[in-house]
Amino acid sequence: MSEQRIEHVAVVGGGVIGLSIAWRAAAAGYRVRLIDPEPASGASHVAGGMLAPLAEAWPGEEELLELGSTSLNRWPEFADELARAAGRSSGLRREGTLMVGVDTADRAELDNVAGHLSDLGRSVNRLTGRQVRKLEPSLGPAVRGGLDVPGDLAVDNRVALDALCAAATAAGVELVPARATRVRPGAVELEGTTVDCDVAVISAGAHSGPLHPALGDRIRPVKGEILRLCRRATALPPPTRTVRGPVHGRPAYLVPRDDGGLVLGATQYEVGFDTEVTVGGVRDLLADAEAVMPGIAEYQLVEATAGLRPSTEDNLPIIGSLEPGVLAATGHHRGGFLLTPVTVDAVLAMLRGEEPEPLIKATDPSRFGGQQ
Amino acid sequence: MSEQRIEHVAVVGGGVIGLSIAWRAAAAGYRVRLIDPEPASGASHVAGGMLAPLAEAWPGEEELLELGSTSLNRWPEFADELARAAGRSSGLRREGTLMVGVDTADRAELDNVAGHLSDLGRSVNRLTGRQVRKLEPSLGPAVRGGLDVPGDLAVDNRVALDALCAAATAAGVELVPARATRVRPGAVELEGTTVDCDVAVISAGAHSGPLHPALGDRIRPVKGEILRLCRRATALPPPTRTVRGPVHGRPAYLVPRDDGGLVLGATQYEVGFDTEVTVGGVRDLLADAEAVMPGIAEYQLVEATAGLRPSTEDNLPIIGSLEPGVLAATGHHRGGFLLTPVTVDAVLAMLRGEEPEPLIKATDPSRFGGQQ
Repeated sequence: MSEQRIEHVAVVGGGVIGLSIAWRAAAAGYRVRLIDPEPASGASHVAGGMLAPLAEAWPGEEELLELGSTSLNRWPEFADELARAAGRSSGLRREGTLMVGVDTADRAELDNVAGHLSDLGRSVNRLTGRQVRKLEPSLGPAVRGGLDVPGDLAVDNRVALDALCAAATAAGVELVPARATRVRPGAVELEGTTVDCDVAVISAGAHSGPLHPALGDRIRPVKGEILRLCRRATALPPPTRTVRGPVHGRPAYLVPRDDGGLVLGATQYEVGFDTEVTVGGVRDLLADAEAVMPGIAEYQLVEATAGLRPSTEDNLPIIGSLEPGVLAATGHHRGGFLLTPVTVDAVLAMLRGEEPEPLIKATDPSRFGGQQ
Repeated sequence: MSEQRIEHVAVVGGGVIGLSIAWRAAAAGYRVRLIDPEPASGASHVAGGMLAPLAEAWPGEEELLELGSTSLNRWPEFADELARAAGRSSGLRREGTLMVGVDTADRAELDNVAGHLSDLGRSVNRLTGRQVRKLEPSLGPAVRGGLDVPGDLAVDNRVALDALCAAATAAGVELVPARATRVRPGAVELEGTTVDCDVAVISAGAHSGPLHPALGDRIRPVKGEILRLCRRATALPPPTRTVRGPVHGRPAYLVPRDDGGLVLGATQYEVGFDTEVTVGGVRDLLADAEAVMPGIAEYQLVEATAGLRPSTEDNLPIIGSLEPGVLAATGHHRGGFLLTPVTVDAVLAMLRGEEPEPLIKATDPSRFGGQQ
């Protein structure tokens, strides 16, 4: 791809990744069409919006932590730019994350995370249950220990998506409200027609696989259910920080919203393209959240939804060239919002014909072998 | 009210009671206007649709049992007429009710109900847990005893409401999509206008109180939350009968629908005009239903809704004349669907200037004294 040739960019998929790429590419002077039957729906609409690479750090996933930490550092500037471009709030919250544990095994896992982060030179503070409740008085007596992770942020996914839609529109992105069926060099095929382009970017999340043979079965859907609560007049206020488990070994989280809302998540099932909310999922989400914060019993249950995370075998996204004129920016698993700034920067560099920064190497589609 | 004078009837409130009265009055030749900003919404839309006077029988409420049993006996004919008039299903299910208990106190309560019904000459069969599971294999091992109540029925409330709307329209009922503010002899006051009539019938459920001074604070809202589930392909089939607790002392029920749906209910709170669904309510409904039928974990949670039962101090409805030209047919508490046939028959008799049947005496507004 030489710099001179690229004028028309087609972005396939209007989640947080696709919208961000479309906005930033249009703002950089490309003529951008965004292809999605319903932008800002799907997994990005369901997401909790945690920007928490540290709280999610896991031994053996150092490349993901590096990507996440780098992207997290860019979020404040990304959010400022977004708010300016959209003329509205980006939805970013800067209160940090509190990890909590309920039983002995949970506390042992907190020790593991604390030890791992400390080995990596990250500062975290181990807390007693009493110290946790001093920081967040709404947390209940079942919380026996915690970990303060001050660097991690959160974003209200729906506020951010609204802002991204506004910014994309303001930058001149043209929406093509249709479903893409196939992407090839020079064109995106829709049902019955095609959209011509110099470069196509596949950012269709869990639905990316069928769009290009190099993606194929590299991306599998991992279902996640979340609940949206709203504080009622008589109820205790929500925590100010994002609070996350392990709660009896299950990865629970409570993410506060600026409007008094509280998002509970998230289940994980590998059951294919199924977005139905199950009784068992709701039961577990409520039980785990109530163990951490008993006061939610008096909250209103506003919404129960499920989305499909686009997952890969190594939990790293797929960012890079699939063949000349076709880029992938997908497979972000649990980290679509978190990894948006670093993904957008990489894709914009590729559009300009530049080499993306070195840490993007780990996400290159060629790592699976054979297909590239 | 003499027979000759009555031509125009205004029915205030389009729940199951108001729709049924409007339909039957129009079919009997009256010119009927039904006043409701959104008919077939409200508590009737939320209802479980159990027609279960026996399973709900309680010592000291013999008049209510008599009303309920009489009305239950009329349901099959009422449903047939409705289906004919509407040209569609009435939603009636004839599979009966199974009461079940989980703990020792629950079983003692089943003994109480069985003893009470037997004293009244009603036939019920006490069952062991094993016998219960023979009848309904989806019920789990926590069910330790049961009571077969074969006479009780159930109706799909939304199918029935659809049919009532169709029947009312076909009979010539004119809908006035507005909110009534006051009812007086000869007129129903709306915001900014009035509807003239010879007789007005107040059937506005929990919202009836402010419409007439004789109702005033006689009717209080009792909030009830219900959940609607749907069987997923991989899940066990729902029971064929209505199944109801006590489950650890709480009045739980599972009402199967013809389309594979299952309605779980119902919480009871006296919290005023509040129709928000709470986390605590959903948690209890799921826990109690899952204790009875573990297989619901794999069901889809389709809807969580709350409605307001119109309750009176003696749990009996208010059916009768408030003053010349103003009838009440409200205060049906948990029994709006059940008591519809007997209520409609009474109101139609009153419109004809006849004395309603003797058992209606117990529901006369004058029983509260002072106001009539």
